[in-house]
Amino acid sequence: MSAVTYTFLGPQGTFTEAALMQVPGAADATRIPCTNVNTALERVRAGEADAAMVPIENSVEGGVTATLDAIATGQELRIIREALVPITFVLVARPGVELSDIKRISTHGHAWAQCRLWVDEHLPNADYVPGSSTAASAMGLLEDDAPYEAAICAPLIAAEQPGLNVLAEDIGDNPDAVTRFILVSRPGALPERTGADKTTVVVPLPEDHPGALMEILDQFASRGVNLSRIESRPTGQYLGHYFFSIDADGHATDSRVADALAGLHRISPATRFLGSYARADKQPAVVAPHTSDAAFASAHAWVDSILKGS
Amino acid sequence: MSAVTYTFLGPQGTFTEAALMQVPGAADATRIPCTNVNTALERVRAGEADAAMVPIENSVEGGVTATLDAIATGQELRIIREALVPITFVLVARPGVELSDIKRISTHGHAWAQCRLWVDEHLPNADYVPGSSTAASAMGLLEDDAPYEAAICAPLIAAEQPGLNVLAEDIGDNPDAVTRFILVSRPGALPERTGADKTTVVVPLPEDHPGALMEILDQFASRGVNLSRIESRPTGQYLGHYFFSIDADGHATDSRVADALAGLHRISPATRFLGSYARADKQPAVVAPHTSDAAFASAHAWVDSILKGS
Amino acid sequence: MSAVTYTFLGPQGTFTEAALMQVPGAADATRIPCTNVNTALERVRAGEADAAMVPIENSVEGGVTATLDAIATGQELRIIREALVPITFVLVARPGVELSDIKRISTHGHAWAQCRLWVDEHLPNADYVPGSSTAASAMGLLEDDAPYEAAICAPLIAAEQPGLNVLAEDIGDNPDAVTRFILVSRPGALPERTGADKTTVVVPLPEDHPGALMEILDQFASRGVNLSRIESRPTGQYLGHYFFSIDADGHATDSRVADALAGLHRISPATRFLGSYARADKQPAVVAPHTSDAAFASAHAWVDSILKGS
Amino acid sequence: MSAVTYTFLGPQGTFTEAALMQVPGAADATRIPCTNVNTALERVRAGEADAAMVPIENSVEGGVTATLDAIATGQELRIIREALVPITFVLVARPGVELSDIKRISTHGHAWAQCRLWVDEHLPNADYVPGSSTAASAMGLLEDDAPYEAAICAPLIAAEQPGLNVLAEDIGDNPDAVTRFILVSRPGALPERTGADKTTVVVPLPEDHPGALMEILDQFASRGVNLSRIESRPTGQYLGHYFFSIDADGHATDSRVADALAGLHRISPATRFLGSYARADKQPAVVAPHTSDAAFASAHAWVDSILKGS
Repeated sequence: MSAVTYTFLGPQGTFTEAALMQVPGAADATRIPCTNVNTALERVRAGEADAAMVPIENSVEGGVTATLDAIATGQELRIIREALVPITFVLVARPGVELSDIKRISTHGHAWAQCRLWVDEHLPNADYVPGSSTAASAMGLLEDDAPYEAAICAPLIAAEQPGLNVLAEDIGDNPDAVTRFILVSRPGALPERTGADKTTVVVPLPEDHPGALMEILDQFASRGVNLSRIESRPTGQYLGHYFFSIDADGHATDSRVADALAGLHRISPATRFLGSYARADKQPAVVAPHTSDAAFASAHAWVDSILKGS
Repeated sequence: MSAVTYTFLGPQGTFTEAALMQVPGAADATRIPCTNVNTALERVRAGEADAAMVPIENSVEGGVTATLDAIATGQELRIIREALVPITFVLVARPGVELSDIKRISTHGHAWAQCRLWVDEHLPNADYVPGSSTAASAMGLLEDDAPYEAAICAPLIAAEQPGLNVLAEDIGDNPDAVTRFILVSRPGALPERTGADKTTVVVPLPEDHPGALMEILDQFASRGVNLSRIESRPTGQYLGHYFFSIDADGHATDSRVADALAGLHRISPATRFLGSYARADKQPAVVAPHTSDAAFASAHAWVDSILKGS
Repeated sequence: MSAVTYTFLGPQGTFTEAALMQVPGAADATRIPCTNVNTALERVRAGEADAAMVPIENSVEGGVTATLDAIATGQELRIIREALVPITFVLVARPGVELSDIKRISTHGHAWAQCRLWVDEHLPNADYVPGSSTAASAMGLLEDDAPYEAAICAPLIAAEQPGLNVLAEDIGDNPDAVTRFILVSRPGALPERTGADKTTVVVPLPEDHPGALMEILDQFASRGVNLSRIESRPTGQYLGHYFFSIDADGHATDSRVADALAGLHRISPATRFLGSYARADKQPAVVAPHTSDAAFASAHAWVDSILKGS
Repeated sequence: MSAVTYTFLGPQGTFTEAALMQVPGAADATRIPCTNVNTALERVRAGEADAAMVPIENSVEGGVTATLDAIATGQELRIIREALVPITFVLVARPGVELSDIKRISTHGHAWAQCRLWVDEHLPNADYVPGSSTAASAMGLLEDDAPYEAAICAPLIAAEQPGLNVLAEDIGDNPDAVTRFILVSRPGALPERTGADKTTVVVPLPEDHPGALMEILDQFASRGVNLSRIESRPTGQYLGHYFFSIDADGHATDSRVADALAGLHRISPATRFLGSYARADKQPAVVAPHTSDAAFASAHAWVDSILKGS
């Protein structure tokens, strides 16, 4: 019996499960597929699972904006790990079906968008049937009354399902496509600083004036903290109201990051900290001398000595 | 016979068609529903239509990111008008079907997301069947073998279709929800400056360094140009590469906007101009004295006099 | 016998002594005139005096750049008080001398510069004889072989010296002229925060690149700290190398000021703190909510809670 | 007979005349020494001279702040050339006078300040007698009743005056000291761009708010224009009101400089252009691709095409 339980954006056989399998021990853990990102996260919030693996960037299954929104609101969560999965697509059909038989193709809308060049060239007349996931479209082929002849899915599910025949491989437009996933748990001790870390925050834009976003960005730039991702999301409350989801280089225990976090909190008190965790690519942060921990320690010691009247 | 042809994100009866109907003369024009934003825009590019109405912000039918991406690449297009449409949802079913009969509900995923509170309260056990649009889900009810008993759609289609019965109105979570749409044509003479205008640009982030986005924003801020929308989009080429889609107050013929455009072009030469057009809310821009047309004219005259040696 | 000893930029009867007399108890203290600012400060550094009164801004006796340079280098000193003295000039001569007799006028060069309009109008043919101070020029008239017939000086000395006759009053070009003086002592406990305070720092420009000065200024601007004085001074080491002498609103015990000081120290580690003291004009600082002590305290508590893993 | 007339800050034999002698043809020109910077400039303004050589930075004769102030106000002038002169000092006395005889030394106050180390070591008990210039102090020794026994002056005058004996050479504290001088004429055609140019402007600080100076500096920084000198000067109108005297790399005919000038004029309409001229050190400007003339030309062509509706 497993001591650890993970939820993930299902169904089984998607790229998200491939990401989860990168986590040490995941093969032996209980892995619960969820029909959407919200459910995967809610079960973690409710204590029914230890962590959830969900897509955060450039996903073929969608869920990215759902993830951005879901972790930005509600009970607080923490990202404790990231995973990168190369994205490759295959075209599958039931045995005996050939390319020339295909009139309708099902897959998730995002996957469909990423295979347009191949489809336009090889099956220009095929109609698109939306699916709720690549795996669901693939599995649907096994049902008797499937309203389509082929599906686009991840190699993983094609390999595991004996009833599916691969008609074409590597049909994605971009051979270097990668999706980034995050492992999300309840708040707790931060993962240890590795020197190659990321910190994720959600910052509501405080006001609609030309400088508000610049003030936010300046909290990072003025401390030499590089940003590897910045995405705006409407808050949904009214048009023109945004929050920004930001990945910054460094760990909250780095002085320059901690100082930037304090600055963000002052400007936008509803800023939410979403975690500090090791980068999947293990690329160490470049730190200028004047933003090093030593520089911060020296500066604070100096100010302290002033305040003590020496 | 109509002299003007519009495409729009269909099918008929969606919020997008409601936006199109706000355009003077649209009722008498040829209106061609398209299954996706790309097709609607491609037909304009190909000269088969004069303009396309597509969603750009906070849409219930999706298409927003598709629109952002589609107008950011390919043959150039120009936004010539914007339209705001209040978003309200109704639950429809075939006559005779009651709430207690409903086990499955179909609608577009974004509409589903915006009616979760009502559904959780009134139909907590209903399963979700993804549809390609709210109208498609509604129309599907009229087919014999519909795999769901109810649909969530716009009031427009419910009103026009005699075979659909409205079981509940105003079931959206946010009573003030609005979607913004844009009318897009091929490049040509700019719409006249009204004093309450918007200019839309797409700016690829030139490099991955802490200050790049700030430099871009500074082109606006340093000329007192307010931003009403800023959204990041991955370019799709590789993780961490973005472009920014930006709505700025003012018209390209305003000196401060023209100057900001020139600055953007220098920093990010692939910057794309997507149009200057009247704001739907007719709110005039606030212009500081030092960023007025007169201030620019005076400054250029002064520099010219210096260069002439006077 | 007095327990307190002050030095000041002499001689007696100058505007600087008038500034010193504003200090409570100065009338009963030992007051030592010094021939230059350096000497006045050195005697404080050596422990021979408790504090020195010297001009810092817009002085008629010179000494301003000398003061800026002298407190920027050498053993550390602290400004503990500022004083404002209205500047008015009189033209004096020995009894019996009339305007028409005057061929040569002596005064300090800065005073001469500030009375040019009056002199050009009333004594256009008078030659200028440089003096080391306004008081020295006035006193020189009492000597037998004075190489000039009149002097420009402060009303104070004219009133105290029976041998001097005032030929004209208020002859300064600017009737609102004011000079600012500072009282400087050895480092010790900071004067108490009054809510209307100033903090003075000296910041060497770290490098010759376009952004260095902006980074320094940003340490203040990003914390909402207004600057009431900024002056550049060459370091004297080589052309193009500067330090900046800056007066900022607020007290070092204000969180926003302390945070700005820490930022300055990181960027330019040789930054020198020259004191926090009450403003002579008692104008309280305006503090934005996000730069208040409460905002800083809240931000630091938030970051602490993150680092503790809650 | 010379066709060209120069004024300079005199008297003859000072470092300023040495600077003037660097100008091609100056040896054959009429050279008029003036007792102060204002007079030297006024004679140019009045058309009595073609140009004036005056100190602008780090001068031993004073005049720097006078120059900064004089060219910042009044009838417009243009800097057309700069000159650098190494500063070395000698101690002179009448023949027969030895070091041990010296009780009083005369020189200009700035020269005195730059020889303090040598004087403190070799003549610690000597009194200082202020002189109006180093040359005046030296020449004063030749008079019968000179109230001092020695003078500090430039080697030039010591070499030319047979009645002066050099007691010590190179007595300045800083062996690398250099003074910068400028040649100033009435407005006219700009000196040609050499690729290693400077542009000098005077910018009144428009308002007393935290960001005003940053906005000014940003006009340069945002166009990649490096600053080689920035000095604040009180306007003299009231405390806390400043103008900035700025040397920027580049020529007004460089697009990035012209654009920065236009920006300055908008923010501070009283900005004064003081000239573009070749750098004495011939160090070429470093220009980033996005601030090159080509980038500006491309940006303006792009904006023009937008405004033309293409």
